[in-house]
Amino acid sequence: MSPKIRRVVKLLSRLPGVGEKTAQRYVLWLLTADDALARSLGAELATLRDELGPCERCGNVAELHEGHAICDVCGDSKRDPKVLCVVARVHDLMAIERAGAMRGRYFVLGRLLSPLEGVGPEDLPIRELASRVRQDGVEEIIVATPPSVDGEATALLLKRELASLGVAVTRIASGVPHGGDLEFADPITMGRALAGRRAL
Amino acid sequence: MSPKIRRVVKLLSRLPGVGEKTAQRYVLWLLTADDALARSLGAELATLRDELGPCERCGNVAELHEGHAICDVCGDSKRDPKVLCVVARVHDLMAIERAGAMRGRYFVLGRLLSPLEGVGPEDLPIRELASRVRQDGVEEIIVATPPSVDGEATALLLKRELASLGVAVTRIASGVPHGGDLEFADPITMGRALAGRRAL
Repeated sequence: MSPKIRRVVKLLSRLPGVGEKTAQRYVLWLLTADDALARSLGAELATLRDELGPCERCGNVAELHEGHAICDVCGDSKRDPKVLCVVARVHDLMAIERAGAMRGRYFVLGRLLSPLEGVGPEDLPIRELASRVRQDGVEEIIVATPPSVDGEATALLLKRELASLGVAVTRIASGVPHGGDLEFADPITMGRALAGRRAL
Repeated sequence: MSPKIRRVVKLLSRLPGVGEKTAQRYVLWLLTADDALARSLGAELATLRDELGPCERCGNVAELHEGHAICDVCGDSKRDPKVLCVVARVHDLMAIERAGAMRGRYFVLGRLLSPLEGVGPEDLPIRELASRVRQDGVEEIIVATPPSVDGEATALLLKRELASLGVAVTRIASGVPHGGDLEFADPITMGRALAGRRAL
């Protein structure tokens, strides 16, 4: 491979889940697709970090304007300010937005409580979350951390820390996924599906 | 999503096998990885089409120097000019190079004979291939087109067309892949594995 291809392949290989073969496939595609694609993508990526930053209110990705960033969810006046969905990462926020089922706004924690990795309660932005709740008059906090050990521990911590604010703290449901086969559900998921049953 | 992210996601989604979710994952990764990654990748991609082009001798991807391009395989004096490996696409050339088992050079056809898609013998660069064979004094042509209907038809066509040049035309072996389970081999592959058996 020529030095230029080797450089591009090496950079592309740093993307998550992309190995050398996939990177080569991307390069060959960019060389045969229309000329504008590689050029536009290159230009957009080169300025990515200059034009995007974390939203000052929720932590979502947002466009920077004169050093300030407010994301389109926080800027959307049709969202209900009384419902706040707490997520671990921007990835999770985007997954919830894709579902189109959230009418409130978000708060990105950035990390989960993780005793094993040395992340304690003091490492989570709980004070910022509490001040956001007070400021916006939030009435319900939907905790949408993942249904893992760290995600559950974080949910319980938030419940305890926010109790004094007199706000309802709810947790997203955990159970057998839509279209999933009961036969292949793991025991914990099955246990949660049963424990979380609702009247028909 | 903000317009900038939407633009980048849309461009990234045009890469082969990349959908909206994967594109979002790439963007979020580029926003959290070190700052230089997005910038360097952007700069390299923006100039991709200016700096790379098809090798004038074999069709491999090569760096352009003053409008001319000779790939590193054609430029490698340690390669045996008497062995020429004919492939359909640059992807295949790269796959063979990864194996490190080819000591000769290449010739990229660019397409395969395909009556169904209206690609006839006159659409293949057979004259260019013949002139390359004569020019370099090639003694063996290894036909490494894929073991598909079109690949086999192309191999037979090359054998016939190049017969007059007095050069050995060989075909790569087709059979059960290394590490493959005989149980899962399809009937055609199994038939070829048996037909292509060699004395131990």
